[in-house]
Amino acid sequence: MRVLVWNEGVHEARQQPANIGYYYPSGIHGAIADLLSRRLPDAKISTATLADDQFGLAENSLDQTDVLIWWGHIAHEEVPHEVVHRVQEHVLGGMGLIVLHSGHHSRLFRALMGTTCNLQWRNAGERELVWTVAPGHPIARGIPSPLVIPHQEMYGEHFDVPRPDDVVFISSFAGGEVFRSGLTFTRGNGRIFYFSPGDQDYPVYLQPEIGDVIANGVLWASPGDSPRGVTPVVNPNQGWFESS
Amino acid sequence: MRVLVWNEGVHEARQQPANIGYYYPSGIHGAIADLLSRRLPDAKISTATLADDQFGLAENSLDQTDVLIWWGHIAHEEVPHEVVHRVQEHVLGGMGLIVLHSGHHSRLFRALMGTTCNLQWRNAGERELVWTVAPGHPIARGIPSPLVIPHQEMYGEHFDVPRPDDVVFISSFAGGEVFRSGLTFTRGNGRIFYFSPGDQDYPVYLQPEIGDVIANGVLWASPGDSPRGVTPVVNPNQGWFESS
Amino acid sequence: MRVLVWNEGVHEARQQPANIGYYYPSGIHGAIADLLSRRLPDAKISTATLADDQFGLAENSLDQTDVLIWWGHIAHEEVPHEVVHRVQEHVLGGMGLIVLHSGHHSRLFRALMGTTCNLQWRNAGERELVWTVAPGHPIARGIPSPLVIPHQEMYGEHFDVPRPDDVVFISSFAGGEVFRSGLTFTRGNGRIFYFSPGDQDYPVYLQPEIGDVIANGVLWASPGDSPRGVTPVVNPNQGWFESS
Amino acid sequence: MRVLVWNEGVHEARQQPANIGYYYPSGIHGAIADLLSRRLPDAKISTATLADDQFGLAENSLDQTDVLIWWGHIAHEEVPHEVVHRVQEHVLGGMGLIVLHSGHHSRLFRALMGTTCNLQWRNAGERELVWTVAPGHPIARGIPSPLVIPHQEMYGEHFDVPRPDDVVFISSFAGGEVFRSGLTFTRGNGRIFYFSPGDQDYPVYLQPEIGDVIANGVLWASPGDSPRGVTPVVNPNQGWFESS
Repeated sequence: MRVLVWNEGVHEARQQPANIGYYYPSGIHGAIADLLSRRLPDAKISTATLADDQFGLAENSLDQTDVLIWWGHIAHEEVPHEVVHRVQEHVLGGMGLIVLHSGHHSRLFRALMGTTCNLQWRNAGERELVWTVAPGHPIARGIPSPLVIPHQEMYGEHFDVPRPDDVVFISSFAGGEVFRSGLTFTRGNGRIFYFSPGDQDYPVYLQPEIGDVIANGVLWASPGDSPRGVTPVVNPNQGWFESS
Repeated sequence: MRVLVWNEGVHEARQQPANIGYYYPSGIHGAIADLLSRRLPDAKISTATLADDQFGLAENSLDQTDVLIWWGHIAHEEVPHEVVHRVQEHVLGGMGLIVLHSGHHSRLFRALMGTTCNLQWRNAGERELVWTVAPGHPIARGIPSPLVIPHQEMYGEHFDVPRPDDVVFISSFAGGEVFRSGLTFTRGNGRIFYFSPGDQDYPVYLQPEIGDVIANGVLWASPGDSPRGVTPVVNPNQGWFESS
Repeated sequence: MRVLVWNEGVHEARQQPANIGYYYPSGIHGAIADLLSRRLPDAKISTATLADDQFGLAENSLDQTDVLIWWGHIAHEEVPHEVVHRVQEHVLGGMGLIVLHSGHHSRLFRALMGTTCNLQWRNAGERELVWTVAPGHPIARGIPSPLVIPHQEMYGEHFDVPRPDDVVFISSFAGGEVFRSGLTFTRGNGRIFYFSPGDQDYPVYLQPEIGDVIANGVLWASPGDSPRGVTPVVNPNQGWFESS
Repeated sequence: MRVLVWNEGVHEARQQPANIGYYYPSGIHGAIADLLSRRLPDAKISTATLADDQFGLAENSLDQTDVLIWWGHIAHEEVPHEVVHRVQEHVLGGMGLIVLHSGHHSRLFRALMGTTCNLQWRNAGERELVWTVAPGHPIARGIPSPLVIPHQEMYGEHFDVPRPDDVVFISSFAGGEVFRSGLTFTRGNGRIFYFSPGDQDYPVYLQPEIGDVIANGVLWASPGDSPRGVTPVVNPNQGWFESS
């Protein structure tokens, strides 16, 4: 199992918010990689950022990735369309994808969804309760219901995404809003998990249960030893009844 | 459009809770019929209860019904299995069905779902906020988001039903719980809408927006002039390629 | 109800295949408009092609359209991305969309699906049988099962689209292949119906049952008098519990 | 992994059809167990029939089962309702279930689906082609598309089941009919796979690719080490916001 944790890394580079280095001394990607390496000791966990060569998303890197984790927020438009297309092809060909929090507005997620991916939001550090609504789903295994996040940005409905395969989690916020916070999708041969908790302002990615969810997501989204590649266009000369 | 509002009517007969006659002088079924008759002036609205002949669910009555509305709570087990089976056949044959609140545990709903339909609950008169998560769905047309219910019984996840066709509404409660409060299902040729607001203790069925949701549900669930009947077992002697 | 039948119109302009003018003297768009005007006498049916001003897809034209029908084949790449984006926004805002046959590879459909939309194909004029698998769906109303198309291009699985809302039709071909030939999707507030029968080589759009399916699709996809517009990004300062 | 292959076993006991003992000397259950034991060497494979104590479905037997495989045809009504209910509870609590062929009309499958499960059929020994329509699904892993079954009973649409989670396979028959032949469902915490190939008249369960599909189904449906049990009814006295 090879996991690539990709983070735009711009908040960290600019030290905005000021406390980001306090919570995430090795960046949000470093914190997520740390959560995963403790839970998936046999996995090979790598990290990459927008500042890396080829935006951290080179073809040979994606070729070696079973599950890609995506965190982005203020630099979505700096990921070139051709790079987005490259990653999308890998997802359609079977690479798992986990999109976190503000990644909902990334070019990649919007290209895979086909919708605006708009939502409501309010950054007031309020309590989020993440409730399990699909307790038999592998991503929910061992996760408390509710999972309590003391301080979080509110994401609220309506979240403009296509009908998901499964609604795994639904959150409520102190303000009363609700959000489908854990959603699965299949696109081509690829499995996609969107999980909304996590923000540059709060130490959500230091919380053990959050690590459990993301690790479950990695296990679920991995294609294992399935062959990679998109559905081909095929033009057989003969039908099966004629050819036999 | 012919709508039959069925209510077990046992709370009303026993005058339990004591204020049920205050809120619902003509019964919960009467209140719902009133909401509908104002919104669907061309519809023929009837009511029936468990105390009626054939439990209010005679074959010739169901034959004349486009959409059945179901409210039950403490007398689920008094509806005989053969009557449940009869109603189920009508739903599979195309009759629309709207199941309200504690009807989630009715024999009819459980037979159509195949699951326990269990959930969490707490009767503390707390505020429910009903958020729209499928704004393009006909049932959400004109409904405010959130729809605020000042005092309600809490219903919470996990709600053990099969994956719905659409999650139209999700509620949060003052206590922090969430619930998929508006769900659609298709079974056979029948459309089913489950809507959780409403209780014998609170005047939810006097609230105009609740009437709007139920009326939208009736319009959505109605089979119109589609022929009624379940999918038949057919045993053709010849395949299409041989027979032409 | 205002329907816009859009056809790239390139086969007709080039008179390729040679018999296209025999089957479709007013173009494929003209034939489809003719089918619809007989079935939906109160609808306003317009046509447009790639050769028209603004590629036949001007903003004020889309503003006046309830349901857009899309036929394209050899000129997909000539529809500029900004025009595709404009149409996509209208679909997400509630405009119905019916994509026919080779439109599966259009930029518009691929943008809405997020997948390759690849499939198998063979142009051998073989018989297609279109079977209904969702008899209670409004699009299947009054359609024979199977609907027999004497000569058709084969489209076969795997068809790389996301899980549809409903599989309304599945076809078999004389060669033995199968294809999910009638699929519905929701994207944003818009309803999308993909229907595979129809080709520039065969008089499929002269067949009355095909007209019935497309007319049913138009009725189903129309937003009616629902307000148009995509889900907005909203940033409320206060939660509901604080604000009341 | 503990697999229980249950077969009513009545065709075998009556030696109807006459050749059943030729194809299936140890019964259909024996043939399926043989297919599985070769593919899942670490699994514990057991068999049971209707003639066994407690109809082969004792509580302590189900307790020790991760995945139940069900084959029935002419004795559906001889499985008592209380036994059906017991098995259903185990499925809702997480036990995997694979229903084969004519098991579509079993009391168990109908109870879990809530529909008639009716379909078309014709026993003419015609060729079935099983096409993969969800190539990324674990059940499709390594399965040829099409999987060719030389002689089979035809099962055709409309198949009256609820919308499945995934349509993994669609079959065509020599006669031109189509059938959704591989379907997945989730009910409670249990995963269900319906797979239509297989009949008492034809040696389908001797075909290696059929064994591959069923073995994939077992691996997919198994709950692994997830805790077993249905969703409980819970009545918390306090909401989360009050209790903290």
